[in-house]
Amino acid sequence: MHDEDTKSLALGTVERRNRGSGQVSPFDRWVLRKLIEAVGGLPYAVVLWNGEEIPARRGTARNTVRVNTRRAFYRALANPNRYFGDDYCAGDIEIEGDIVTFFQDVYRIVELVQKRSALSQLFAWIDRPQAGTLARSRTNIHYHYDLGNTFYELWLDREALQYTCAYFPQPDLTLEQAQVAKMHHICRKLRLKAGERVVEAGCGWGGLALFLARHYGATVRAYNISREQISYARARAQAVGLADRVEYIEDDYRNICGQYDAFVSIGMLEHVGPSQYHELGKVIDQCLTERGRGLIHNIGRNKPLVTTSWIERRIFPGSYPPTLREMMAVFEPFSFSVIDVENLRLHYAQTLEHWLSRYEDHVPEVQARYGHTFVRAWRLYLAGSIASFSTGWLQLYQVLFQRAQDNDVPWTRAYMYS
Amino acid sequence: MHDEDTKSLALGTVERRNRGSGQVSPFDRWVLRKLIEAVGGLPYAVVLWNGEEIPARRGTARNTVRVNTRRAFYRALANPNRYFGDDYCAGDIEIEGDIVTFFQDVYRIVELVQKRSALSQLFAWIDRPQAGTLARSRTNIHYHYDLGNTFYELWLDREALQYTCAYFPQPDLTLEQAQVAKMHHICRKLRLKAGERVVEAGCGWGGLALFLARHYGATVRAYNISREQISYARARAQAVGLADRVEYIEDDYRNICGQYDAFVSIGMLEHVGPSQYHELGKVIDQCLTERGRGLIHNIGRNKPLVTTSWIERRIFPGSYPPTLREMMAVFEPFSFSVIDVENLRLHYAQTLEHWLSRYEDHVPEVQARYGHTFVRAWRLYLAGSIASFSTGWLQLYQVLFQRAQDNDVPWTRAYMYS
Repeated sequence: MHDEDTKSLALGTVERRNRGSGQVSPFDRWVLRKLIEAVGGLPYAVVLWNGEEIPARRGTARNTVRVNTRRAFYRALANPNRYFGDDYCAGDIEIEGDIVTFFQDVYRIVELVQKRSALSQLFAWIDRPQAGTLARSRTNIHYHYDLGNTFYELWLDREALQYTCAYFPQPDLTLEQAQVAKMHHICRKLRLKAGERVVEAGCGWGGLALFLARHYGATVRAYNISREQISYARARAQAVGLADRVEYIEDDYRNICGQYDAFVSIGMLEHVGPSQYHELGKVIDQCLTERGRGLIHNIGRNKPLVTTSWIERRIFPGSYPPTLREMMAVFEPFSFSVIDVENLRLHYAQTLEHWLSRYEDHVPEVQARYGHTFVRAWRLYLAGSIASFSTGWLQLYQVLFQRAQDNDVPWTRAYMYS
Repeated sequence: MHDEDTKSLALGTVERRNRGSGQVSPFDRWVLRKLIEAVGGLPYAVVLWNGEEIPARRGTARNTVRVNTRRAFYRALANPNRYFGDDYCAGDIEIEGDIVTFFQDVYRIVELVQKRSALSQLFAWIDRPQAGTLARSRTNIHYHYDLGNTFYELWLDREALQYTCAYFPQPDLTLEQAQVAKMHHICRKLRLKAGERVVEAGCGWGGLALFLARHYGATVRAYNISREQISYARARAQAVGLADRVEYIEDDYRNICGQYDAFVSIGMLEHVGPSQYHELGKVIDQCLTERGRGLIHNIGRNKPLVTTSWIERRIFPGSYPPTLREMMAVFEPFSFSVIDVENLRLHYAQTLEHWLSRYEDHVPEVQARYGHTFVRAWRLYLAGSIASFSTGWLQLYQVLFQRAQDNDVPWTRAYMYS
């Protein structure tokens, strides 16, 4: 069953289910009514598989949700995290109107529901970890990483191909300007000086490493396990004449060796997994000089959540956004001094708005190559992520640290803003 | 035994022990030599109770330590955290030269030693929690809190009597300027507007509450369990005509009621104890409006340390500086969003330098009132604290937070520096 799902999603050959047919029983209506009562009314209309419409709570109809099969209805109730995404991609659930607003509404409802203990326990049960989910999800890794550089080039910034949160000191910056601003922000925080040695853990397509060398005169070793990204990065470094100052290494962060004045890792920690945080801290402890500075930038949470969500199964297998408390497992055992933490979650919502908008501009090309289901899957992922960051379900942490005994700390953080 | 110690310390009537008498045995010398070898040489000379001098490691003699009794020697070896302070106060151990430098050297040696596993285990054993220490220490609470306002007025700032870390945007500010800068820094972080309601948990002598009302137009309710401090604060508010806008309440932070636009707590969390962090978070969750901001400012650590140190027994009973990880127990259960963390430990070292310098200027008055041992105890505490902050053994965290779904967050933190 699951393999079939994977295949149909991957190939985009979705067989539509018996949409618009079948009866809605009194029991179905009773379940739906109870659900709507429990959450205090829905801010969107619901159209059931027989065409019957349940209107939205008065004055709030911003979207219409079409539930096209009874199966999708009960799957969404039983485990929305797990099934909603697949059923949406398959077209068994449709959202008319702004999908970002829809998800923001959903997150607000869930937040509200979690505050009532009885319902909260029900949702916790629904959201319980599913045995074997991780193992199954491994088969989906190609959803994200084997899509090829050209797919991401369609909608990421053209400046440095950054697949991480940008920084908008003014919210009306272009995506390119905001990604450059992000890289400057990181370099300023690290107080990077010409000639310093930087190691980057998880370098993506290598854009930041080139930037550090070009604009701050750094010598960079950048690690990544993706062969395709490393090839791309090396070619770029050659093309811009920086191959002598930027070395890309196809290897795991755990194999980092050498001594560096700065350690930087942007958008990797989410994929490391809490069990490896101590190991990561050890690697940093071994490679950072006595006067070295470090910066980790990652998606996080306010409180821990074991998700079996669709995004983690279909888009980012194995990812885990940690809380600040959990992140401290990187720093605490090695007595690193956390100098500064900044939460940039609204910058990620803004970044994703740009990505989604560019993605929508390229839907015809994406559909031609990957099919209809794929188009819907990525729309769901980008829109859902905007909603997560803009409603506070996800955070974006930048943590600056150095060694406990290093007193070379500026008296104020004004230098980050000059 | 312990009660006698307490009494003699409290009354300042220390009976000097058999200083300068007694033999140094070959075994004593062997123990000392082994110790010095283990830590790679001492950066200060040691003069033993028979007058015999062991020179410092070549080129490093910044201080001389006089160990005036064999008892003090073995007590310092067996449990320095516990006995060094008392023996120093009693005059059985003396430090010639700069006492701050001495402690900085000690902390560096301990840091070094902790990196070698065998010695580290030995020191962990020496430093193990002592059953009953807390119960005994309760008898010493008067060391800190019953000293009277006049004692603190001798050496705290004259502006707002702040017994917490100041903020030095320029390191050459006076203590008064730096305490004012600290209060402005806190208000800017909180983006405090005229007419807003602020609640302060642990208000000391009430200086910050007055400042919030006077300079930011806030209405403040400030809680403190110390009757003496509350009386002082109320009198001050009356004197400056702000009694209608600043209300001081003699009560525990757990009894805070009402709704507030901002929650602020400066230097209280160290005294709350980790078991109560959840309760503190609950109080904040109950009293903060949907758009409310909060700031907690406290002494902390890079990694947890169960101390039985002299300072905690004699000066600050029951205090516990938490790590950032531990602090998250305040925020995480209530899904507060941590917006910003700043580590100001070097500002505390600087603050303490000012305090120590003023304290030394007033030693004759302190000695006349509290006696010789008391003078030494407070010198030890202030100097030891400078060394703790300047070598990275202690941190000073300012954590800014607000509700998860509140998107009213400035795009950059430049507003804190304008």
